[in-house]
Amino acid sequence: MSYGYTGTMRTRSGRRDEVVALLTRDVDVLSSVGCRLYAVAVNDDDPDLVWVYEIWDSKAHHDNSLQLPSVKKAIEEAMPMLTGEFTGSELAVVGGLGV
Amino acid sequence: MSYGYTGTMRTRSGRRDEVVALLTRDVDVLSSVGCRLYAVAVNDDDPDLVWVYEIWDSKAHHDNSLQLPSVKKAIEEAMPMLTGEFTGSELAVVGGLGV
Repeated sequence: MSYGYTGTMRTRSGRRDEVVALLTRDVDVLSSVGCRLYAVAVNDDDPDLVWVYEIWDSKAHHDNSLQLPSVKKAIEEAMPMLTGEFTGSELAVVGGLGV
Repeated sequence: MSYGYTGTMRTRSGRRDEVVALLTRDVDVLSSVGCRLYAVAVNDDDPDLVWVYEIWDSKAHHDNSLQLPSVKKAIEEAMPMLTGEFTGSELAVVGGLGV
């Protein structure tokens, strides 16, 4: 079993692709700190929404990653482009393919 | 860019783990038909809900997979344990780690 996180964040109008670029920058480092998957996705039906899905070795690995300089910087740069509307759920990933 | 699908299904009371077992059975075959990730997850805060997240080479690959005998059989067996309450969103997975 591994730790999962699924969520969305709403961006200010027209800023989605800039936020996506920030979120997908410098992600290779995550593999060395317990991240198994980090997927950033969109759906043009709701063009100011960004979807993330993450799988980590544990919740602690996920929480610790928020202290990485590259992660802190991406969050800091993204914040002004977000409305503050977030959704999120923690999950226990129990099986499947590639998990 | 790849095709993503995220969704939930609600199970009849107490049947979640049986549904999870069905959904995670025979999944290795999916890797040969364009599936990159198929994650089945739960959260005990809502103990009759099953979360799925899938990444495929394309929507066509996903749709075609529904005709696989193992997939059809799993759906057929799971249906009586589900309430019929589903949520789902199609996504364009645009980047990240392991996608």
